[in-house]
Amino acid sequence: MPDARDAQVISALIAELPEGTVITDLDSLQAYRRDRAEDPDAGVPLAVVRATCTEDVQVVVRIAAREGVGIVPRGAGSGLSGGSSAVDGAIVVSLERMREIVVDPSLQMAVVQPGAFNAEVKAAASEHGLWYPPDPSSQEFCSIGGNIATNAGGLCCVKYGVTTDYVLGLTVVLADGRAVKLGGPRLKDVAGLSLTKLFVGSEGTLGIVTEAVLRLVPAQRTPTTLVAVFPTVDGAIRSVVDVKAAMRPSMLEFMDRATINAVEDMMRMDLDRTAAAMLIVQSDEPSEVATAQIEEIERICEQHGATEVYATSDPDEGEALIEARRQAIPAVERRGALLLEDVGVPLPRLGDLIDGMRAIAERRGVEIAVVAHAGDGNTHPLIVLDPTDAAQRERADAAFGEVMDLAIGLGGTITGEHGVGRLKQPWLADYLGGDAMELNLRIKRALDPQGILNPGAIFADS
Amino acid sequence: MPDARDAQVISALIAELPEGTVITDLDSLQAYRRDRAEDPDAGVPLAVVRATCTEDVQVVVRIAAREGVGIVPRGAGSGLSGGSSAVDGAIVVSLERMREIVVDPSLQMAVVQPGAFNAEVKAAASEHGLWYPPDPSSQEFCSIGGNIATNAGGLCCVKYGVTTDYVLGLTVVLADGRAVKLGGPRLKDVAGLSLTKLFVGSEGTLGIVTEAVLRLVPAQRTPTTLVAVFPTVDGAIRSVVDVKAAMRPSMLEFMDRATINAVEDMMRMDLDRTAAAMLIVQSDEPSEVATAQIEEIERICEQHGATEVYATSDPDEGEALIEARRQAIPAVERRGALLLEDVGVPLPRLGDLIDGMRAIAERRGVEIAVVAHAGDGNTHPLIVLDPTDAAQRERADAAFGEVMDLAIGLGGTITGEHGVGRLKQPWLADYLGGDAMELNLRIKRALDPQGILNPGAIFADS
Repeated sequence: MPDARDAQVISALIAELPEGTVITDLDSLQAYRRDRAEDPDAGVPLAVVRATCTEDVQVVVRIAAREGVGIVPRGAGSGLSGGSSAVDGAIVVSLERMREIVVDPSLQMAVVQPGAFNAEVKAAASEHGLWYPPDPSSQEFCSIGGNIATNAGGLCCVKYGVTTDYVLGLTVVLADGRAVKLGGPRLKDVAGLSLTKLFVGSEGTLGIVTEAVLRLVPAQRTPTTLVAVFPTVDGAIRSVVDVKAAMRPSMLEFMDRATINAVEDMMRMDLDRTAAAMLIVQSDEPSEVATAQIEEIERICEQHGATEVYATSDPDEGEALIEARRQAIPAVERRGALLLEDVGVPLPRLGDLIDGMRAIAERRGVEIAVVAHAGDGNTHPLIVLDPTDAAQRERADAAFGEVMDLAIGLGGTITGEHGVGRLKQPWLADYLGGDAMELNLRIKRALDPQGILNPGAIFADS
Repeated sequence: MPDARDAQVISALIAELPEGTVITDLDSLQAYRRDRAEDPDAGVPLAVVRATCTEDVQVVVRIAAREGVGIVPRGAGSGLSGGSSAVDGAIVVSLERMREIVVDPSLQMAVVQPGAFNAEVKAAASEHGLWYPPDPSSQEFCSIGGNIATNAGGLCCVKYGVTTDYVLGLTVVLADGRAVKLGGPRLKDVAGLSLTKLFVGSEGTLGIVTEAVLRLVPAQRTPTTLVAVFPTVDGAIRSVVDVKAAMRPSMLEFMDRATINAVEDMMRMDLDRTAAAMLIVQSDEPSEVATAQIEEIERICEQHGATEVYATSDPDEGEALIEARRQAIPAVERRGALLLEDVGVPLPRLGDLIDGMRAIAERRGVEIAVVAHAGDGNTHPLIVLDPTDAAQRERADAAFGEVMDLAIGLGGTITGEHGVGRLKQPWLADYLGGDAMELNLRIKRALDPQGILNPGAIFADS
C-alpha cells in the first residue's frame, strides 16, 4: 500500500511530466526491476519515468529531491553489476526513449542521447567514414549512457582505450535538478576541474547524464585476425605477455576450455574442444605491418606450445571468430545462472590470477569459465550456478568474493569495466582502502547531500 | 616582519623536516616566486620546502593545515598561467628534488616522481623501446608533475591525446596531510569514482601529487615531416580542416608570419619571411601509408594555394623543422615580454578565431603572434609588450581578456593545455557559467575546506 508521500510523489510526476511517461502499475514495473546482473535483492520501484528529454529528467529529480525519494537511472538494462537494480520506493528514470544521435563530420564528433545503443552510435559514425571505438561485447544492446556510467571497455581497448577516452562533454542533471553542461566539442580543454571525467564511471551516483559529446576517429582499417589454440593455459598467457611486449595489437582475447566448449555447444564452429585455451588476436595496422605482426604473433604462440594457429585477413571470417568471443557470456549462460566477475590485474600477474581462480573453483566445487580481455589483464570469470540449489548458490557467492580478494591480493581491481553497482559495493572499501574510500564518499556527499542518486550503487545506502 | 604564527610555522618546518629542505632567506626565496608566466602579482613566500619524498610533503601540509597557512606546489617553474606564483605568507612546496623514474617494461608503465622532467621520462621509456607521448614544447624543462597538474598537451596530442590519457595512478597528499593512492598499474579499473582523472588538471588545488603511474606505448615510428608555406592564413586553415577530415596526422602545427619571422631571426633556417602562414605536419604511419598521406596533404595544401611544400623522411631534418615550431615562444619572447594565450575552439571555427585575434591586435595596437596546435583547434596567441610601457601593458591586458571572450563566443575554451592558474582565474566563471562554476567550487570545498591548497589558482582566494 503506498503511503501518503508515495501518493504525492506519483501525482506530482503525473501532473508535471508529459502524458505516457510515468508507469506505476505493478505488472509494467516488473520489467524495470533488474538489469542483466539479475540482482536477487532488487526492489520494486514506486514508479518508472520514461524520460523524453533533459527537462523530464530535471522534473523527476526536483520532485525526488523535494520529497527525499531515491532515483535509479537506467539505460538499456544490460548492466552486469546491478547498477540499475530497482530500489523499493525509489523512482526509476529510464533513458530508453532518449536515443538521438547527431554526427558532425567536420568536428569528428557525435552528440548523443544516453539511450542510444553503442552499436547505433558506431553505425551513425560509420556513415561518415568515422568510428566510435569502445566495443563492449554487449554493443548491440547496451546504451551509450550505461557505457558512460560504467566507463565501459570492450575488446579493442587494448589499443584504443575505454569510454572515458572518447567523452569530451556531458550534460548532467545534478541532485538538485539543475542541468549543467561540462566540457564540449573541444579536443583540449583544461578550464576548471576535470568534471567530465569525474562523471564518467560514476554510475549515476553523482548526476544523470542526458547528453554526451563523443570524439570519433577515422574508420578502423580492416583487421587481420589470428586464432591460436593451446594445450595449456600457461602457454596462452605467456603468449599474451610476449605479444604485448612486442607490439600493440588491436585485440587480444582469451577463452578457457569451459568457455570454448560452451561456445561450441551453441555455435558449432568446429572449435577444438580439447584445447585448454584459445587466443583471438587482431592487428589493424596497414597490410605490410599487419602481415609482419601476425607472423610474429604466430611465432610467439608456437614457441609457447600452440597446437594450431590460424590467421585470416578475410573480414567476414575474422568477424565470425570475434563473434565466438562476443557470444561467450550468452553461451556459458545456457549452462546455468551466472555470477559474472570482472576482475583485472597487472598483465604479468594474469597467470597467477587464472591459476588462483581454478583453485577457488575446485575448493568451492563450482564451475568457473574464464573469458578475458587478456591484453588488458581484465578477466571475466563466469561462475555457473543452479539458482534453485541454495547450497550451491552459497558456495558460488563465496567464490565470487574470493575471486575479488584474490585480485586485490595480486595488485588488481575488483572491476575493470562493468562497474561496482550493487553487487560489488560490499568489496569496494576493502579494495580502495579507508582513505580513498573516504575521499570517494566526500565527493558523493558534496554532490548528492541527500543521497537520492542511485542509492546503494557504489556506496552503501545511507 | 614575520609575526608570531609565521615564526611558529618556520620553526615547525625546520624541526620536522630533514636538514637542508627548508629555505627562508629572502634572497633564495626570490627564485621561487614566479613561474614562466612572470605574474606581476606574485607574492613572497614565507618559506620554500624542497621536499625529498611523500612524507616531507605530508609534514608540510600537516603544519600548514594546523596553522591555516597556504601552500603553493611547484614543479619546474615552467608554468604559463601563474599556477605556481608564490603567495604572500604561504609555503612553496617545491618538488624539484623528487625526480625518480622507474620503468617497468613488462607492465609498459613508468612510476615517476613529480619533479622528473617530461623529456627525462621520455628518455627513460625509450631505453626500453617504449614511448611516453605527451610532448609540451617545454618538454626539456617542464616537470611531469606540472604536466599532470595542468593536464598538459603538446604537439602529438592531435593523434595521441593529452596527459590524462596516460595517467593510470597517482599518490596524492590531501589537504589534511594524508597520502592516498588512487588507481595504479591497471589498464582498466572502474572501482569507485574516477578520482585519478579528477586530480589530473586540478593544478594543485585539491592535493599535491607525489608519484604517478604512467602508461607507456611502443616507440613511435620515425615520422615523415611536411612543411607548407601559404600566402594567406585562410589557405592554411582550410588545409588543416581538410587534412583532419582525411586522416589522423601525428602532428599538425601552424605558425603565422610574425612567428615565422621571430623564429627566423633567432634560428636562421631560411624560412620564407613573406609567408602569411606555415604548417608543419607529420605522419608516423608505416612507410607505405605515410607516403600516401604526405602526398594527400601536399595535394590539399596546393589546392589551398600553398606556394611551397616540402616533405622529408629524414628524421634529423624533420626534427629540425619541429624544433623551429618548439622554439616559437622563446623566439617571440626576444621581441618583448609576452602575455601568452592558450585559447581553443572547435576546429571549424579556427579561422574565425585567428581573424578575430587579428582584429583585436589592430584595435588595441598590440602585436599578436600566433602559433597553434592547429589540428586540435588549440592556439597560442602571443601578445608582445614592453613591460616598462604602462599604457601598452594596459592595452595588452585588455587584448588578453578580449581574446578569451572571443574564444568563448566561438564555442571555445579559455585554456586548452596551460591551465587556469592565477592569470586566467578571473575569466573562469564567465567561461564555465554559474552552475558549472558552483560545481567546481563544491568539489574544491569538499577536498580542501580550509582553502590552503594553492590559494588563488583556478579559484579566487577566499
